[in-house]
Amino acid sequence: MIERLFINVMSQPVPSPQFEGLWRFPGETSASGYRSLSYWTDIAVQLEKAGVDALFLADIHGIYDIYDGSRDAAVARGVQVPAIDPVLLASSLIAVTKTLGFAVTYSTTYNPPYQCARVFSTLDHLSGGRIGWNLVTSYLASAERNGMGTFEPHDLRYDKADEYVKIVRALWEESWQSDAIQHDVDHDLFTDPEKVHTIDHSGPWYSVEGPHVCEPSPQRTPVIYQAGASRRGTRFAAQHAEAIFATFPSVAVGVRHMQALRQAVEDAGRPTERVKPFQSAFTLIAPSPREARQKAAAVTRMISREGELTKLCAWIGVDLKGMPDDLAINNLSIEASQSIRAFLKRHDSERDWTIGDLRSIAIMSRSPHRRTGWLVGTPERVADQMEDFAMRTGIDGFNLIPCPPRGGIDDICNLLMPELQRRGLVPDTSPPEGLTLRQRYFGAQATGYL
Amino acid sequence: MIERLFINVMSQPVPSPQFEGLWRFPGETSASGYRSLSYWTDIAVQLEKAGVDALFLADIHGIYDIYDGSRDAAVARGVQVPAIDPVLLASSLIAVTKTLGFAVTYSTTYNPPYQCARVFSTLDHLSGGRIGWNLVTSYLASAERNGMGTFEPHDLRYDKADEYVKIVRALWEESWQSDAIQHDVDHDLFTDPEKVHTIDHSGPWYSVEGPHVCEPSPQRTPVIYQAGASRRGTRFAAQHAEAIFATFPSVAVGVRHMQALRQAVEDAGRPTERVKPFQSAFTLIAPSPREARQKAAAVTRMISREGELTKLCAWIGVDLKGMPDDLAINNLSIEASQSIRAFLKRHDSERDWTIGDLRSIAIMSRSPHRRTGWLVGTPERVADQMEDFAMRTGIDGFNLIPCPPRGGIDDICNLLMPELQRRGLVPDTSPPEGLTLRQRYFGAQATGYL
Repeated sequence: MIERLFINVMSQPVPSPQFEGLWRFPGETSASGYRSLSYWTDIAVQLEKAGVDALFLADIHGIYDIYDGSRDAAVARGVQVPAIDPVLLASSLIAVTKTLGFAVTYSTTYNPPYQCARVFSTLDHLSGGRIGWNLVTSYLASAERNGMGTFEPHDLRYDKADEYVKIVRALWEESWQSDAIQHDVDHDLFTDPEKVHTIDHSGPWYSVEGPHVCEPSPQRTPVIYQAGASRRGTRFAAQHAEAIFATFPSVAVGVRHMQALRQAVEDAGRPTERVKPFQSAFTLIAPSPREARQKAAAVTRMISREGELTKLCAWIGVDLKGMPDDLAINNLSIEASQSIRAFLKRHDSERDWTIGDLRSIAIMSRSPHRRTGWLVGTPERVADQMEDFAMRTGIDGFNLIPCPPRGGIDDICNLLMPELQRRGLVPDTSPPEGLTLRQRYFGAQATGYL
Repeated sequence: MIERLFINVMSQPVPSPQFEGLWRFPGETSASGYRSLSYWTDIAVQLEKAGVDALFLADIHGIYDIYDGSRDAAVARGVQVPAIDPVLLASSLIAVTKTLGFAVTYSTTYNPPYQCARVFSTLDHLSGGRIGWNLVTSYLASAERNGMGTFEPHDLRYDKADEYVKIVRALWEESWQSDAIQHDVDHDLFTDPEKVHTIDHSGPWYSVEGPHVCEPSPQRTPVIYQAGASRRGTRFAAQHAEAIFATFPSVAVGVRHMQALRQAVEDAGRPTERVKPFQSAFTLIAPSPREARQKAAAVTRMISREGELTKLCAWIGVDLKGMPDDLAINNLSIEASQSIRAFLKRHDSERDWTIGDLRSIAIMSRSPHRRTGWLVGTPERVADQMEDFAMRTGIDGFNLIPCPPRGGIDDICNLLMPELQRRGLVPDTSPPEGLTLRQRYFGAQATGYL
């Protein structure tokens, strides 16, 4: 029995978020809309009205340039370039909404922690506590060539991020006492300086004295989201995250990983109910099975083959262009084959993969016909799938990735949300204004980081 | 004969912008309002309706800590701490306005140029070209202790900033050709990669390869504002700025400095009409002379003496606390007395200053009774002063600093702007939607950086 599901919708201010080539899908306006205020304010108002809990905004730094040894394919196919800054976009959308939450991607690699603390305190003040931080560490080597910091190996990035989180949480939670602000007109006393403290952090990576420059915001610490899937990433998420994004390919894998995650959270000394796992899922909805099939077929046709390969090559760090389809991955260099195996792990299968298989996966993962990782069909069918998946794995909600990017948001709001409301899986009333995002997820008693 | 005046209003998301202690002024709501979205959206909507050209948002990094060798006075008196981030605030205010411009302070010291380029391209896209960048280099040593970069001497900061501007302008103006975007559905061609170029900058301070990650925004380059007053600062402003903020203490000084500025702009190889100088002025307005006198007296009483001294000590880098009033500045260390003389230069007078004089200036400069640097009185009187000052110095407009911070905005919008409209000094119709900030200042032909 599921009490309720939390529904986040994921997007990104790029021409064709998550599905390369779908800026060309009939009726889509994302090609110019991604950089237009009214495109986004329409979406935010629509999501809020429909009862969606939060808009999740992804980000990237740098341009994919592994495929064919150049950035040309990424530029030509519009693969996350051009882009605009999602943090600033979120700040605009705060102004036209009252209750919608915003989970904003912000990298620990590109911004000093003192700056990060001010950014999220500002967003939390302006939004009245509706902010989450999708904490990412990873980045592309191309960002380094733009003077955005040095490229460091994966596990080291997480070590730095551990220290980073410690610092920003100290600024948010320990620097200003709750009763520091005085507003004492008679004594010209705005703040009691005895109640504002330095944090005096000095560690291997960062030195930050403090105090924080912002007074405590409604949530103090934004809700911390994390999607680390590697072993080191899972440990990091278990230590810090309150919301975890998973992409379980099946119920069986979900059950297994949920056990591992709960164990990791316990090992980190935190109660397991303080971490909400969300399943990320590509979502394609239509009023009838026939329309869903037609739309799925159109999406499959429209996916940009080269766009998806561009992304895949950047992820695995191997240029597949020109390699024959029947080349076995085992015959590549040790480094390349290891990197590809790490990527294929999520496909949960052991076999003698070829380059052709890999190409198929890259393209087909974005095709609704594949089903794995997808919610496809009528609102009833998708709600069935969600309910079943949540019940059997124990996840708390979904991070829906609309397909196509703009029309899919209409379908989620107009078709799916009403169906979930009918089933009592999501509330059919708006949350009260002033409820923070953390309270929305964890209940009214959740006044600070759990 | 003045054709027209441009009117910017200056504020800052801190409890008591520019006037320490005035958060206590009767009717002021800035003490809590500075961090509240509705406080600011009300202001932005009001300024737009009144016909103000742009809202100028100041910023600071770090906390003043010279006075009494501690940050306690800054914290106690609320001297620019607590604060929130003005860049994010501007992004919120974009969403509730259609024609108002925003000049946003952003430091070249704390943010890599590649990031700066994305921030302003994003704001320019979302606002439809209503963005200016108030380029600042200066910062407090206390920011260094928070891991925000190394403290560097004044002139060196400008050398770095020269290179910085070169990079961001190359990203904005040279990286993407105007016809790069294709949206060619049939050929899966979003952007023509042949028309997107790296900038390959490699200089003494920065290495940035590019290309820019954003497609060209309405203005490409935001309107560049600068307030550099030192010799090096003036040279910098003459080279790069399109709008310059001056604080001329008198018409005579204004005339002299305007000549020097025009010369500096010519020396930089730019036509002088491509730089608009604005006079910054504290502004106190009331319906009648009697009410203006009463309000001025109340402001003088309410200014926080310690708050203003805290600011002064940080500016001059000398702790005045405990020094006797009759101590001559000549008797201080060479370093301290030089620094104080540099500060006093703007007061345009040579005499044997004492610590007491300096203290008086710090307090009295914020008192409307002093007149220098102030516009005080009825709307008619203030409009007279503005007209006279502009006519005799040749400035293009004003950067009004409202006193008190919130009520002063009401007075500018409700009393002063209608008077300026009656005189034909500002237009009495809204600018057309879609006009960029640069076009608003320089005319419809100003489609890019001049």
